Amino acid sequence: MTTASSPIGMPKDMLDTPALLVDLDVMMANVARVASICRRNGVQWRPHIKGQKTIAIARQELAAGAIGITCAKLGEAEVMASAGIRNILIANQIVSPIKVRRLLDLLDRADPIVAVDSIENLHELADAAKARGRRLNVVIEVDVGMKRAGVGPGEPVLALARAIAGRPEIVFRGVMGWESHTVTIADPEQKRLAVAGAIAQLTASADSCRRAGFAVDIVSCGGTGTFPYCAEQPGVTEVQVGGAVFSDMYYRTKFHVDFPCALTVLATVTSRPTPNRIVLDAGKKVMSSDAAMPMPLGLPEISSLRLSAEHMTIELLNPSDRPSIGDRIELIVGYSDTTVHLHDEIVGIRDGKVEAVWPVAARGKSK
Amino acid sequence: MTTASSPIGMPKDMLDTPALLVDLDVMMANVARVASICRRNGVQWRPHIKGQKTIAIARQELAAGAIGITCAKLGEAEVMASAGIRNILIANQIVSPIKVRRLLDLLDRADPIVAVDSIENLHELADAAKARGRRLNVVIEVDVGMKRAGVGPGEPVLALARAIAGRPEIVFRGVMGWESHTVTIADPEQKRLAVAGAIAQLTASADSCRRAGFAVDIVSCGGTGTFPYCAEQPGVTEVQVGGAVFSDMYYRTKFHVDFPCALTVLATVTSRPTPNRIVLDAGKKVMSSDAAMPMPLGLPEISSLRLSAEHMTIELLNPSDRPSIGDRIELIVGYSDTTVHLHDEIVGIRDGKVEAVWPVAARGKSK
Repeated sequence: MTTASSPIGMPKDMLDTPALLVDLDVMMANVARVASICRRNGVQWRPHIKGQKTIAIARQELAAGAIGITCAKLGEAEVMASAGIRNILIANQIVSPIKVRRLLDLLDRADPIVAVDSIENLHELADAAKARGRRLNVVIEVDVGMKRAGVGPGEPVLALARAIAGRPEIVFRGVMGWESHTVTIADPEQKRLAVAGAIAQLTASADSCRRAGFAVDIVSCGGTGTFPYCAEQPGVTEVQVGGAVFSDMYYRTKFHVDFPCALTVLATVTSRPTPNRIVLDAGKKVMSSDAAMPMPLGLPEISSLRLSAEHMTIELLNPSDRPSIGDRIELIVGYSDTTVHLHDEIVGIRDGKVEAVWPVAARGKSK
Repeated sequence: MTTASSPIGMPKDMLDTPALLVDLDVMMANVARVASICRRNGVQWRPHIKGQKTIAIARQELAAGAIGITCAKLGEAEVMASAGIRNILIANQIVSPIKVRRLLDLLDRADPIVAVDSIENLHELADAAKARGRRLNVVIEVDVGMKRAGVGPGEPVLALARAIAGRPEIVFRGVMGWESHTVTIADPEQKRLAVAGAIAQLTASADSCRRAGFAVDIVSCGGTGTFPYCAEQPGVTEVQVGGAVFSDMYYRTKFHVDFPCALTVLATVTSRPTPNRIVLDAGKKVMSSDAAMPMPLGLPEISSLRLSAEHMTIELLNPSDRPSIGDRIELIVGYSDTTVHLHDEIVGIRDGKVEAVWPVAARGKSK
């Protein structure tokens, strides 16, 4: 519940807490940097919005040159389509009669492209599209090494492309892969080599399809931890990088990404039980910690951090009477993708003041 | 986004996924069992609703004999008050002008009791109450060993009680503690002893207050992993157990609780990339895994489970062509407290059919 009056113009430390803040200058510089890397490499940018879930940010990315967006969930695509965004890659399999009906409904107001990785799902989509008299765009998801969904590269891709060609209701647009098994490699040259090896499987699969007579206009890959390397690979047409616009502790420490962090949680000190202990009103329900721990800013040296459902407990190395009960503490988000969806809104901050309040419109759109 | 038509009466396997389900028979048996344990021990039940967040469930607990509810957050209390629930313990410190104003606003429609653990916060509450011409009920939070918020037992409790007595706007109601450091003890007798030791600090603090002339009508403690032992301790007036009505993998495996699990996530198989691998449409954003991994039901022997933001990847020990793409898989929730708040609604199931759809009304009420 927010205050009745508008917070626009309010100093950030006056906000009720816990609040999710984004530094607009940092975020916009990150948006510009991603767009610039893409332009320089001659690839398109189709930002993944599963970790952003916010129409205003998608619009900023489109304004910076993104060709469309990538969604994980049909529900996210529905929200974004309702905001007038038409070009949407759903980088996931859409399965079951309810979802396929919703996907076909979406064709009335957007141009979705959906990932397929099985003959069964292809026929489910094609039968439904045929019954509705519609055509549906698909990419083939290729497992380039992460061992989750996707068909194997090469012949399995070709086999699925051939099956698609047998279903006139389905339009084959290309291939998609996610080289997530390479993101944690620390050494840039080793990461470049690993990404090149993974993406070569994707681009070779695209070339096989072309040689077999199937037009391929999309070769999509590239997350925050890898996209500069993906963008360099010949044959890649677009990257999906989304999280870089926020960056976070996870990306910086585990994925070795140097984008500055834009996303923070503002919390209040609610208890100082000992001269070393600080208790905040922000726990796991507003800041995930399973990928990386959020990092409080501006405190004396910390000896331990603990998150429970509703609290963060901080132990200082040395006793201190600061911060006091009621003081605000800002924390860099641990992992943006599993933090943003915990909030109803993102508060945009510039020069320490509230400039915008954006609803997390795709919050809960997990179906 | 749910389907336009009401799902009431629908077989659960027809629901769109991922969906959060509660088995109503199991949940109501758990509610009755908690109420019965409390009655047998002559203590009151004030269920914590931070993990339930649902008005309908709070009403079931009140109907079973609960005297009121416990909330972690003021926002939860506001939601529950809006549903007509008046007797609300906010088991947390309410700090900062915005929140104190909201707390005093709440007095117009509910009877909140709030936890204090510092002189600073006491005076903040008292000054605001005085300015509004209101009186506010408080309990003193006592650290009985968990090392989070709370004053130490004994003299620090008395000191704060004396300070409260000096502020006529604040009504001292009693003490509260949370013996969370004992929950993981496996051996029942050892757990009973550890709980007794922790709670003795709480009840002794209450007795000290009484001897000093301060009436104590609330001595509150007892979570899901400990409450049967808390309820046995002389001097305890009420327990806060909430999660037991759902139970989950965390409670059962880490807290050694034998309540049957009522809460599941229904997911769909979206990919079968190999004869051993199953990919579901349910990841961390609908099922937390930081406390315990959700457990899929009805599958052949599993060799590994992996959760990413939007997917669960299951590897079977032996190849199998079952389940197929499109099949529904139900998973026991890992930790209910950090799963329910990820969902917009809980679907109540009886005899395999939808009997109720409850909004998770306190979702996002983290302020």
